[in-house]
Amino acid sequence: MKNSINVGLVGYGFMGRTHSNAYAQACKFFPHTIHPVLKAVCGRDPVKLQTFADNWGWESTETDWRKLIERSDIELIDICSPNDTHMDIVLAAAKAGKMIICEKPLAKNASEARLMVDAVKKAGVPNMVCFNYRRVPAVTLAKRMIDEGRLGRIFHYRAKYLQDWTMSSNLPIGGPTLWRLDAKAAGSGVTGDLLAHSIDLALWLAGPIQELTAMSKTFITNRPLQADPSKSAKVEIDDACAFLARFKNGALGTFESTRYARGRKNQNTFEINGELGTIAFDFENMNVLEYYDHRADSAYRGFSKIQVWDGDKHPYMGNWWVPGCGIGYEHTFIHAISDFLYGLEQNTKLCPDLEDGYKTQLVCDAVLASAASGSWQQL
Amino acid sequence: MKNSINVGLVGYGFMGRTHSNAYAQACKFFPHTIHPVLKAVCGRDPVKLQTFADNWGWESTETDWRKLIERSDIELIDICSPNDTHMDIVLAAAKAGKMIICEKPLAKNASEARLMVDAVKKAGVPNMVCFNYRRVPAVTLAKRMIDEGRLGRIFHYRAKYLQDWTMSSNLPIGGPTLWRLDAKAAGSGVTGDLLAHSIDLALWLAGPIQELTAMSKTFITNRPLQADPSKSAKVEIDDACAFLARFKNGALGTFESTRYARGRKNQNTFEINGELGTIAFDFENMNVLEYYDHRADSAYRGFSKIQVWDGDKHPYMGNWWVPGCGIGYEHTFIHAISDFLYGLEQNTKLCPDLEDGYKTQLVCDAVLASAASGSWQQL
Amino acid sequence: MKNSINVGLVGYGFMGRTHSNAYAQACKFFPHTIHPVLKAVCGRDPVKLQTFADNWGWESTETDWRKLIERSDIELIDICSPNDTHMDIVLAAAKAGKMIICEKPLAKNASEARLMVDAVKKAGVPNMVCFNYRRVPAVTLAKRMIDEGRLGRIFHYRAKYLQDWTMSSNLPIGGPTLWRLDAKAAGSGVTGDLLAHSIDLALWLAGPIQELTAMSKTFITNRPLQADPSKSAKVEIDDACAFLARFKNGALGTFESTRYARGRKNQNTFEINGELGTIAFDFENMNVLEYYDHRADSAYRGFSKIQVWDGDKHPYMGNWWVPGCGIGYEHTFIHAISDFLYGLEQNTKLCPDLEDGYKTQLVCDAVLASAASGSWQQL
Amino acid sequence: MKNSINVGLVGYGFMGRTHSNAYAQACKFFPHTIHPVLKAVCGRDPVKLQTFADNWGWESTETDWRKLIERSDIELIDICSPNDTHMDIVLAAAKAGKMIICEKPLAKNASEARLMVDAVKKAGVPNMVCFNYRRVPAVTLAKRMIDEGRLGRIFHYRAKYLQDWTMSSNLPIGGPTLWRLDAKAAGSGVTGDLLAHSIDLALWLAGPIQELTAMSKTFITNRPLQADPSKSAKVEIDDACAFLARFKNGALGTFESTRYARGRKNQNTFEINGELGTIAFDFENMNVLEYYDHRADSAYRGFSKIQVWDGDKHPYMGNWWVPGCGIGYEHTFIHAISDFLYGLEQNTKLCPDLEDGYKTQLVCDAVLASAASGSWQQL
Repeated sequence: MKNSINVGLVGYGFMGRTHSNAYAQACKFFPHTIHPVLKAVCGRDPVKLQTFADNWGWESTETDWRKLIERSDIELIDICSPNDTHMDIVLAAAKAGKMIICEKPLAKNASEARLMVDAVKKAGVPNMVCFNYRRVPAVTLAKRMIDEGRLGRIFHYRAKYLQDWTMSSNLPIGGPTLWRLDAKAAGSGVTGDLLAHSIDLALWLAGPIQELTAMSKTFITNRPLQADPSKSAKVEIDDACAFLARFKNGALGTFESTRYARGRKNQNTFEINGELGTIAFDFENMNVLEYYDHRADSAYRGFSKIQVWDGDKHPYMGNWWVPGCGIGYEHTFIHAISDFLYGLEQNTKLCPDLEDGYKTQLVCDAVLASAASGSWQQL
Repeated sequence: MKNSINVGLVGYGFMGRTHSNAYAQACKFFPHTIHPVLKAVCGRDPVKLQTFADNWGWESTETDWRKLIERSDIELIDICSPNDTHMDIVLAAAKAGKMIICEKPLAKNASEARLMVDAVKKAGVPNMVCFNYRRVPAVTLAKRMIDEGRLGRIFHYRAKYLQDWTMSSNLPIGGPTLWRLDAKAAGSGVTGDLLAHSIDLALWLAGPIQELTAMSKTFITNRPLQADPSKSAKVEIDDACAFLARFKNGALGTFESTRYARGRKNQNTFEINGELGTIAFDFENMNVLEYYDHRADSAYRGFSKIQVWDGDKHPYMGNWWVPGCGIGYEHTFIHAISDFLYGLEQNTKLCPDLEDGYKTQLVCDAVLASAASGSWQQL
Repeated sequence: MKNSINVGLVGYGFMGRTHSNAYAQACKFFPHTIHPVLKAVCGRDPVKLQTFADNWGWESTETDWRKLIERSDIELIDICSPNDTHMDIVLAAAKAGKMIICEKPLAKNASEARLMVDAVKKAGVPNMVCFNYRRVPAVTLAKRMIDEGRLGRIFHYRAKYLQDWTMSSNLPIGGPTLWRLDAKAAGSGVTGDLLAHSIDLALWLAGPIQELTAMSKTFITNRPLQADPSKSAKVEIDDACAFLARFKNGALGTFESTRYARGRKNQNTFEINGELGTIAFDFENMNVLEYYDHRADSAYRGFSKIQVWDGDKHPYMGNWWVPGCGIGYEHTFIHAISDFLYGLEQNTKLCPDLEDGYKTQLVCDAVLASAASGSWQQL
Repeated sequence: MKNSINVGLVGYGFMGRTHSNAYAQACKFFPHTIHPVLKAVCGRDPVKLQTFADNWGWESTETDWRKLIERSDIELIDICSPNDTHMDIVLAAAKAGKMIICEKPLAKNASEARLMVDAVKKAGVPNMVCFNYRRVPAVTLAKRMIDEGRLGRIFHYRAKYLQDWTMSSNLPIGGPTLWRLDAKAAGSGVTGDLLAHSIDLALWLAGPIQELTAMSKTFITNRPLQADPSKSAKVEIDDACAFLARFKNGALGTFESTRYARGRKNQNTFEINGELGTIAFDFENMNVLEYYDHRADSAYRGFSKIQVWDGDKHPYMGNWWVPGCGIGYEHTFIHAISDFLYGLEQNTKLCPDLEDGYKTQLVCDAVLASAASGSWQQL
């Protein structure tokens, strides 16, 4: 069996950092037989790119992602560039027979995503979309608890993803760092950026959504342009978006995300109420899963704060430190890369793969369509 | 000025207890010039009624509310009987020139409520609907903070009211204690029982709602009859209900209530995100208001846990104990009765009056209509 | 059997209010056969006294506690006056054959307390010292859990009682309201006022203390006199006091109390670590008991937040409202009076009685002695 | 200026891992001009050692620390071996002119530590003892707040360090992994292992301790030998230890640590009460610092939960991710190594250096002496 895999990374922004770190750390903490080799990183600004490559140990650089894909020494293309580049890169990488890891949201919309899924299926290449929050140990534990039947029939799924970083009307639009406010680059606002995470978790934890109705809002409708602050542009992304959903299993869902919740920095939460118990998660306190076990002695039960850091009992934690020693945001990416490697090593389905990403995109599209039309959308 | 007011109470169930206690306590802790006299309590079971009257110090009993209203020594009718009796009692009491306190929800629907408002207006009698959660000191403080401009422009209003007491399929429907599951007696399920509270607070704190879209669900569709458990009846109330709303001030609202959230006993919460700050409340920790003040020193700000028990600073608390000494559920009713007395003493608008209750009922009706039709409802 | 008991209350300050309220409420919520009658209240200022009596429904007043005791219509003397009056009143009341309830600390020191215990024993009168925190439902539940063996062998007992109300150097000493700062009236500072509560709970929950070593401090050593703020007096009470203890059962104890902990208003806490589990309590969140059950499934255990408001399962709560509806500070006194009545009705030992109060006083004396000498004290 | 530093690590256990990771990560996240080179790692088991070296990228191995020190290519000796080896290694390394990083506790006792300090002073080599909890951003922030005068005069310092990992009586003593239970290897139990951390933080945050009185206890007095579980040995370390202290600044301190607190895994906490405010920290929720600011508006103040993850405002966090993205245990070591490098680059005092470690050791010795004698110890 091969014992290394040559990685070509596209993008050296925030996600480029998280992935670079993940490649360096994954094999130090998890016992892999396949080791990633940081072969090349690709970006448009050669000076910044070289600094990034030097810092993280990328062996070479490319300023054109097409060249990166053409290189015969690259086996895995990891896409950390803005959303509007995902499709073209995936199509080309698949065609070239490369393995693919793609940051979320998979695409700007479901029709793009469909083409991407078709391409990787046709090419038969391993592929994964990087919904990192599945890899928070507390969230992975939640999945295990649901699969074990600890919640029983699910009645309610309740998700929020709240931030506050775009509340200033001075914050400009566009450019390399603020493309998330530019509908052309991002596809959508919080729907693709934040709700996509909440939807991915919901589909994983509670199964398919059958129908939904949504509302969205752009609170600040004009912003200065990053390239030229004397000019302004109309903001076309959604600043906030919420929807009601019915799951196929009969549960009701409520979802909300915004970048206008003062004081909430990255509050990605869910609560699931089942017949036998409730679990609740808040990423701002990521080492904890709250659990109410209805089957426990009724005089002494309550919401338990499970500190998810026991190596013997909790996902991923056996490879880190000891109980009482929490981990952080970056570890979710290390786990994602490690899980990708395990998938290759054990020849199991990568999870979530691009098809899973497509399913999330279908829900995102339905959310945006419902927010525009005011009517329920079937899925 | 009169220094007493003769009260006739209708209903001796759970709400009858909270009100009886409130009449006894209000003047011991708040310096009123008008003192309520517990003149008569009315209920259908004379034996239980007498026990109740003896316990709480009601001077006399009646088994027919019409007789209670006819009594010339009764000046205030306080209605704590099931929802389907509210209208008739209010109409009769108003006609008889009695002051009126009515438990929430005001009526089974807005058209009933409209008639009630017209009746009290025509009669010119003081009237109040008892939305007790306005009288939680932390909630009253929230109102003051909003009025002072501490939140600035409001972007989001987020309310939940979660319980779990009807999850057992063995729980019967109907009868004196479980009329809340009977659509005929209750009008609706969680919408009238729980969402009405959330809506009342939202209208008070964030102003009118312009439009909404809702979904509801009955999880357990058949239940044994309380009167004859060998028979069952179709459940026609909503077990859970959620809606999305747009406020007139441009804010987005999400509301959810259910009786199927394991482990949540009376979790009445709201969070309001404004330009300048956020406040968050959870009745299960009722002596606390969380506050994020964006204007504070950015290195040292965070969500502050305001313990709302400082007599010099916080609503109502100057009349209780000392800082560090919390109050409980029953105090919200004592505050409501005390506020009613202050209104009489100072001849100010009672708040919320039946017209306020009617406005909440309009929203409830829109929620139920939207849940039935699947379309947005304008208000 | 007698169905009433005539009460004479000494003191109409803060504790006079809590007790007056408790007498009024106890029988409304708890099914007693013996009902207290508010016969007379005693205080030195006749005007304020009459206002107090009118407010709370005391039938008559006395300005000399000796007269109160002499009255043949008084059966129970309830002592809510400053600490330095407790002994004389108890001795006289016992001699007169009255039942006795005495606020804590029982006395200024153990030798006084010893005389008081001897007096009530000789007189054979029912007696109770009012350590109200035993009657917090969460604390009573903790006692039950320990008695059930849920903690197993106890290793650690950790108590804090933190306040901040005397931190201002402008706060005067002495007088009717600030006698707690006057060593002559109070006997000691935080040791008698706060530590006495912590010690009472510790002895009740974890058993006798064998030895201890203490330190204390007076942070503000001179204060203006309340009677004449132009003059100042030396402060002779302890502002803060902490001690280490060894329990007879082998557990280690740490205790601390202060009135100089900014932001802590009435933070009376304990945590008990046993072989099988841990419980933790904080009065500032009094409806909650935290519980770590080591015997639970190790993957899913954590500190459970038991919301102690379930009527079927939790002490006292079946007589209040419904789950989700918390109670407050005043209820601890209502429970104390109710328990006193149950004790009379069922002819069981009142708990804690004056002998229990004496044992707590012995520990307080040892704390003060050790703080003075710097050496371990045996008990 | 040199731009690299060759590291020789002694020990490949738990601390060896944390330091190895720290060397790899420090320069990726912090902009250093001096980069550590992982030159050699030293341990006794050559097979395990090689596996460790391969995993972490150590260029070579040594099985005798004396040889490591002799190597001319090694510039920095980092000591992660058991406590009883620290002194000899430091003395030799200093003599050889190597820079030194030493894990805590610095030594088995203060006389050892004194020799070590003398040695590094004589040699004039840069040196640091690795009290990693100073490098939790929330703790560093606490230090800044105190230095800024945000607490004012300090009245109370309250520290706990609670674990539960040695509660099983089956846990053996001695050997490579459980030397912490062996007094010969560890010097002491929780005093050196846990209290040393609490004391280091206290001296840093609140200044010198003047006197103290302590108690300690060994709960399980005999344990099987790891080498031969059929035999048992007397346990000579302290399982739990607590002390009362007076700081030079007049504040009172309480300290407690144990390995017998069920459910507490690594609960390293402190609370500091000052005239102007209180701060509280709990490592089990390490991204948070609680702060009560007495100078804030009295109606709206409370304990603020400062989420210490704002890059612009909070120590270290500008080099990690974005607000809302917490860090974990391992980052404290990365910060320690980074701070060591900054010290070299900027030629500033390393903090804490071995002299600081010696001062902590003096307090530890006083604690053990007082626990043995039962009397107050002066410092």
